[in-house]
Amino acid sequence: MQLGMIGLGRMGANMVQRLMRAGHDCVVFDNNPQQVQALVDQGATGTTDMADFCVKLSTPRAIWIMVPAAVVESVIDQLEPHLKADDVLIDGGNSYYQDDIRHAKRLAERGVHFLDCGTSGGVWGLERGYCLMIGGDTDAVERLDPIFSALAPGFGEIERTTGRTGSPSRAEQGYLHCGPSGAGHFVKMVHNGIEYGLMAAYAEGFNILKHAGVGRADHASDAETAPLSNPEFYQYDLDLSQVAEVWRRGSVVASWLLDLSANALAADANLSDFGGRVSDSGEGRWTSIAAIESGAPAPVLTAALFERFSSRGEGDFANQLLSAMRYQFGGHHEKPTS
Amino acid sequence: MQLGMIGLGRMGANMVQRLMRAGHDCVVFDNNPQQVQALVDQGATGTTDMADFCVKLSTPRAIWIMVPAAVVESVIDQLEPHLKADDVLIDGGNSYYQDDIRHAKRLAERGVHFLDCGTSGGVWGLERGYCLMIGGDTDAVERLDPIFSALAPGFGEIERTTGRTGSPSRAEQGYLHCGPSGAGHFVKMVHNGIEYGLMAAYAEGFNILKHAGVGRADHASDAETAPLSNPEFYQYDLDLSQVAEVWRRGSVVASWLLDLSANALAADANLSDFGGRVSDSGEGRWTSIAAIESGAPAPVLTAALFERFSSRGEGDFANQLLSAMRYQFGGHHEKPTS
Amino acid sequence: MQLGMIGLGRMGANMVQRLMRAGHDCVVFDNNPQQVQALVDQGATGTTDMADFCVKLSTPRAIWIMVPAAVVESVIDQLEPHLKADDVLIDGGNSYYQDDIRHAKRLAERGVHFLDCGTSGGVWGLERGYCLMIGGDTDAVERLDPIFSALAPGFGEIERTTGRTGSPSRAEQGYLHCGPSGAGHFVKMVHNGIEYGLMAAYAEGFNILKHAGVGRADHASDAETAPLSNPEFYQYDLDLSQVAEVWRRGSVVASWLLDLSANALAADANLSDFGGRVSDSGEGRWTSIAAIESGAPAPVLTAALFERFSSRGEGDFANQLLSAMRYQFGGHHEKPTS
Amino acid sequence: MQLGMIGLGRMGANMVQRLMRAGHDCVVFDNNPQQVQALVDQGATGTTDMADFCVKLSTPRAIWIMVPAAVVESVIDQLEPHLKADDVLIDGGNSYYQDDIRHAKRLAERGVHFLDCGTSGGVWGLERGYCLMIGGDTDAVERLDPIFSALAPGFGEIERTTGRTGSPSRAEQGYLHCGPSGAGHFVKMVHNGIEYGLMAAYAEGFNILKHAGVGRADHASDAETAPLSNPEFYQYDLDLSQVAEVWRRGSVVASWLLDLSANALAADANLSDFGGRVSDSGEGRWTSIAAIESGAPAPVLTAALFERFSSRGEGDFANQLLSAMRYQFGGHHEKPTS
Repeated sequence: MQLGMIGLGRMGANMVQRLMRAGHDCVVFDNNPQQVQALVDQGATGTTDMADFCVKLSTPRAIWIMVPAAVVESVIDQLEPHLKADDVLIDGGNSYYQDDIRHAKRLAERGVHFLDCGTSGGVWGLERGYCLMIGGDTDAVERLDPIFSALAPGFGEIERTTGRTGSPSRAEQGYLHCGPSGAGHFVKMVHNGIEYGLMAAYAEGFNILKHAGVGRADHASDAETAPLSNPEFYQYDLDLSQVAEVWRRGSVVASWLLDLSANALAADANLSDFGGRVSDSGEGRWTSIAAIESGAPAPVLTAALFERFSSRGEGDFANQLLSAMRYQFGGHHEKPTS
Repeated sequence: MQLGMIGLGRMGANMVQRLMRAGHDCVVFDNNPQQVQALVDQGATGTTDMADFCVKLSTPRAIWIMVPAAVVESVIDQLEPHLKADDVLIDGGNSYYQDDIRHAKRLAERGVHFLDCGTSGGVWGLERGYCLMIGGDTDAVERLDPIFSALAPGFGEIERTTGRTGSPSRAEQGYLHCGPSGAGHFVKMVHNGIEYGLMAAYAEGFNILKHAGVGRADHASDAETAPLSNPEFYQYDLDLSQVAEVWRRGSVVASWLLDLSANALAADANLSDFGGRVSDSGEGRWTSIAAIESGAPAPVLTAALFERFSSRGEGDFANQLLSAMRYQFGGHHEKPTS
Repeated sequence: MQLGMIGLGRMGANMVQRLMRAGHDCVVFDNNPQQVQALVDQGATGTTDMADFCVKLSTPRAIWIMVPAAVVESVIDQLEPHLKADDVLIDGGNSYYQDDIRHAKRLAERGVHFLDCGTSGGVWGLERGYCLMIGGDTDAVERLDPIFSALAPGFGEIERTTGRTGSPSRAEQGYLHCGPSGAGHFVKMVHNGIEYGLMAAYAEGFNILKHAGVGRADHASDAETAPLSNPEFYQYDLDLSQVAEVWRRGSVVASWLLDLSANALAADANLSDFGGRVSDSGEGRWTSIAAIESGAPAPVLTAALFERFSSRGEGDFANQLLSAMRYQFGGHHEKPTS
Repeated sequence: MQLGMIGLGRMGANMVQRLMRAGHDCVVFDNNPQQVQALVDQGATGTTDMADFCVKLSTPRAIWIMVPAAVVESVIDQLEPHLKADDVLIDGGNSYYQDDIRHAKRLAERGVHFLDCGTSGGVWGLERGYCLMIGGDTDAVERLDPIFSALAPGFGEIERTTGRTGSPSRAEQGYLHCGPSGAGHFVKMVHNGIEYGLMAAYAEGFNILKHAGVGRADHASDAETAPLSNPEFYQYDLDLSQVAEVWRRGSVVASWLLDLSANALAADANLSDFGGRVSDSGEGRWTSIAAIESGAPAPVLTAALFERFSSRGEGDFANQLLSAMRYQFGGHHEKPTS
């Protein structure tokens, strides 16, 4: 079937390619003519004019928006005058689910369906397919089924969950209608919150392995650190790249994120290209806020989020106050950074 | 080659089977004659007498101990008089790495090699193979290579890590000589610490999804909870079993632990067979202690550990004191449990 | 000067008494005639009719609202038709500072000033005075100065902060104009967030002291817990009531919250009147949300909040999933609750 | 009575002065002759020779050791040959309680009593007195009562705990016999653990106040941070020095640590003398380890400890791995530090 794609960044462009490979017909829009042309060269219909884009799509239209969360609102503003009843708009980016609820209400007034679709897969999705978490009207979801189905990874060779039988459900093909408006991005939000926790678990673990030699005489010791109680037990020099590799096979902690860690550590076990200032994109924050608002304890996910803040120096003033208190009650001077 | 196995519980018995399938010759010992007989029926040589066990093994012996950590010491006590120079002892259980260092020193005095081997794989290892993390003398590790190789999963069909070439290393076959005495169990300890963090990340995430309907009128509300600020945003009734399923394909959070969660949720999305009193086996504790002793921050792994303590009521007195303070300063009465 | 007080609960009634003791003239309103009468008996002018209340106040009016956060909006709705330009409304409850900003804008349209005032002091404020954190127009704050001054504790006998000289500032008398609309409740919100952290620090500490005897033979051991590594180091039977007492004098952890803990433990060192289901009132949540939104790491304050959620069973499903995963990968059965 | 003091650093020297003011007779030892002379000038008997020190003390001796934890063992080694049955040794430093148990056993073999005494008070103790937490034999504690009593703050003007009557107990005078060997340092250890939690609660809270202006146009924005959702709610410019001051009077968070924070912020609200690399002295670590070993959840205290580790860069590798994973799955480049 025909799909219009707005936003031809890494994600959007790859998704168009995956759809065309599956035989779908794509009309693409971006402000950047080069990105449009690149897909036109591969068989898409393209334009840098929003009105023209809407004209090129046959009604009822199916339009997928793949832009940064902060831009979605203005894209809808531009699209709205051109839309007609029964058109379907899908926000496939990392939007806040509360915005979806608002957008869906607004567009419903003119009979336009709005779906929210959490899309996981990153740069790997073109080949592996995208895991899709969808919210909104059942009718609209049904109409778009061929598109979702083509983007999703499919049943693949993954071992079937115990107890599941019969022809594979959509979930088993990698896409799911989660519930009404916002449900897709709600599930995607929590997905990313979990991702933060998983990533932090590996990061902390490898950091402990990295510290396994702090008792060695040749190990740079930090004058500020409390003296190590049992140096004889911290004498190891572990090869983190090999450890990541061995865990990929048969261990309980095997995962795709571990595979990626193994890639990174194989390239450089010291990770010296990275300074350790870790960004966060919004969904980790929203997950913790949802946990707080709904009263669900989430200490692990939230600690993972706060570690990212701290990595960017956002806790510095708190640390300065700790040093200042120590100076006040004990006359302790901060040791120089050397 | 020939291997002696002490301890024929779920892990030990499965490992013997996997070794015999690979053509190795196993002599087995357990205090329980039925467990010995079960393996004898499959071709093992068996005994319930420790001296006899040592006689049945040709020297230099290779003996694998697969018993609870608390029992290892007494098994070594029983074995020691029967051992000779050049024998190799492997502790394949979940022992504390600091005990390994002690055991290795003690046995070295009579020329016996002691290897520590962290073994991951659980009940699935018989078919999938065991991920092995080994510490100790290089010579002894080399001598046992056929055993480790047979127990490990092998290279398998897992996609190769970017940049790795040539014939697969041991790590790529699922076993690794991590370093000197204790290094194997140190790596396994951190592996389990990470596992606690990963498990908690999924558990907290699914719990947030479970709370996504707290704003619904039909949802049981708890009189003690602060009133929900934005009930209109917590109106979902998500199918957790389907969510777990869809994440298995193409998403960033795919992992073996997620596969297991999907199994459990497919069987019963309410998990009503489980009361939520979560045990911990020691290694999560040791990981956090290692983090503290070596000065490596591990807030996520440690929060995961403490959640398990709390799940067993170990934080009750702290909570009582909080309620008592609230009563003292604000006259707040605890609401009844109903 | 004259002040109208709406809401004669524990806080409101005590504040009226403190104001009348200082010579101020109070007009009081409550839906409950008995609570009105109790203060009329002490010299206040009273009414249960909102219109009448506004008539009894001379213009420009000064009205203090002391009601639950959830009721503030409807009180303003009732008051608004009776208000005139230059009247001042103070919300002295535990409102969300973002609501203050909204209320102030709305009332400014008819020339009414809206102040937000975080009020700390609990049931002890009548005698000790109330710590006041105020937000809003400088003019209105100045006009109400006699009221704030009378409610605040005053300079008292507290040792002066190093470096402060001259006549005591308002802050040194226990009240502070923090900034524009919402600033008072923002500071009060963070004050309560800190309070959650402080309370949790004491609660966890006393709980560790309570666990100091887990190695004793007479101590009830929990079959689910990992066996204690070093029982010989956990043989104490500490008198928590005495420990709280000794810390009150000369120690670094002395505080008012410790005084309250000492009161509670002196009454019953087992705190058996309390079940340990700890409520939270909203401000702890808002503090953590503010931390997340503004990118300030707050792992301690947020962990304290989540402990309260867990104390009410809100983490149970997460714990059930942990047990379910353990069963899946290791065949571990949850131990019975006994 | 007579007391020998070993170690004339800030703590030891002040304690000798406080004892002499109370009429006690002090014999002092230090390797540094200047520190000995300073106290001799004030009336103490002094020496830099350990044997001479023991000779100068009348038997049975009472000797207080006030040296860094790492030095205690060697001081005992030097003292031991000179000691006789019935002598009492007090370790008043910040030693690990498990070492006390060992030391007490060793010295008991020659009839020497060993007391452990946690001492809180810092540089303020000379004037305010020291809060003392004592472990060991009851007889020895009784014999030393005059010393403990003189060091402790005494009943003072602190309001009595509700329900306490009669003549003040030792705890009400600021010293407590907590239990057998190690109990004093165990209680002091947890005291310091709580202190870490309290300090972190204030530090995080003030840091949130510091972030209250992140939505202002004039506020330096960090390119790496997720865009602020609601900038209109983060427009404040709060005077942290004034906030600390106002909380000192009548608020729930009043405490000695807040007084110290007020001192520091009054001197420089930007705390620019401090870099924020926060040391830890051992007791916070031991508290968290005790929590883990005894199964008592302590997420707040442990998060506070880990924040200190992170402040010293000990989490950098973990953060680098997070950035590396983000690069792997999403092609995300770390933003430059600028």
